Amino acid sequence: RTRNEVLFFPSKMACINHIFAPSSPQLCFCPLPHGVETSFSRLLRCILSASSSLDLCVFSFSNMDLSRAVLTLYSRGVTIRVLTDKDYAAITGTQIGVLRKAGICVRCDVDSVYMHHKFSVVDNRLLITGSLNWTRTAVQSNMENVIVTEDPDLVRPFIKEFQKLWLHNDPA
Amino acid sequence: RTRNEVLFFPSKMACINHIFAPSSPQLCFCPLPHGVETSFSRLLRCILSASSSLDLCVFSFSNMDLSRAVLTLYSRGVTIRVLTDKDYAAITGTQIGVLRKAGICVRCDVDSVYMHHKFSVVDNRLLITGSLNWTRTAVQSNMENVIVTEDPDLVRPFIKEFQKLWLHNDPA
Ligand SMILES: [Zn+2]
Ligand SMILES: [Zn+2]
Repeated sequence: RTRNEVLFFPSKMACINHIFAPSSPQLCFCPLPHGVETSFSRLLRCILSASSSLDLCVFSFSNMDLSRAVLTLYSRGVTIRVLTDKDYAAITGTQIGVLRKAGICVRCDVDSVYMHHKFSVVDNRLLITGSLNWTRTAVQSNMENVIVTEDPDLVRPFIKEFQKLWLHNDPA
Repeated sequence: RTRNEVLFFPSKMACINHIFAPSSPQLCFCPLPHGVETSFSRLLRCILSASSSLDLCVFSFSNMDLSRAVLTLYSRGVTIRVLTDKDYAAITGTQIGVLRKAGICVRCDVDSVYMHHKFSVVDNRLLITGSLNWTRTAVQSNMENVIVTEDPDLVRPFIKEFQKLWLHNDPA
């Protein structure tokens, strides 16, 4: 059966530290609830399931937990490509500079008015897409949706579109 | 086979007048290309395929062609429900007032920071969702995506979420 899941936001707040280190014992003393599954923890798990590649195409990226997820994947040797909007790459609180400094390959859309996508593809197999920018407000305060699917009819066009945009915005 | 389609934007520009009156002869003398299928014409066709209901949940709605589509459905007796963001319902160029004046039922989200969804459900059967706000800029200038699907695993959660938001924002 093809994996198909819809997540709605705002997400409840809960500790997500254990998701980053599933194998080590869970001793966290932060004030957030523990052992609670939320839309955001589901989203993080999907992203952190990447074992070979993560292609991310997102308008606005300032969420520090999501940045931590991308950096974690990078430290595990996962190939990361980030495509973002040229204007929003420079705003306050953006994580784009952090990713770049870590060595992650980032390209900015230079042509369109807004590069307004909010999708990612995990291991060329799992599509994560919807209305949700990778910001704290989107996760914690807005009404948002995210579709997580392995349906090839949906995943394939996004892989193709990412490739097109990536090549088109070649910094060379 | 379940219907699954992905549309990418910006859309090419082409005349869309014939889509509103498919049965009458196509005599249009506007300067746009004719007989060209585009992402936007596909989107319009999906929306105009509604025969019983259209539930629309969209952050920003200023596109006059999409407004015309909703008004056309309304004139055909299709039940329309529009849920939008309270702040964006009042901005310049919004079509929300036009829809309200025509008699269409509109509710505004009052709780969250942004009601940032951009989805609609046609006849409780077809889901149209993605990054695309119902604005001219989104259609003509931005990089955007829209998924059109009849997969019940995806459609059902959105129907449920719409119902929840609709009841929660009861104006009474
Ligand atoms: Zn904790
Ligand atoms: Zn014409």
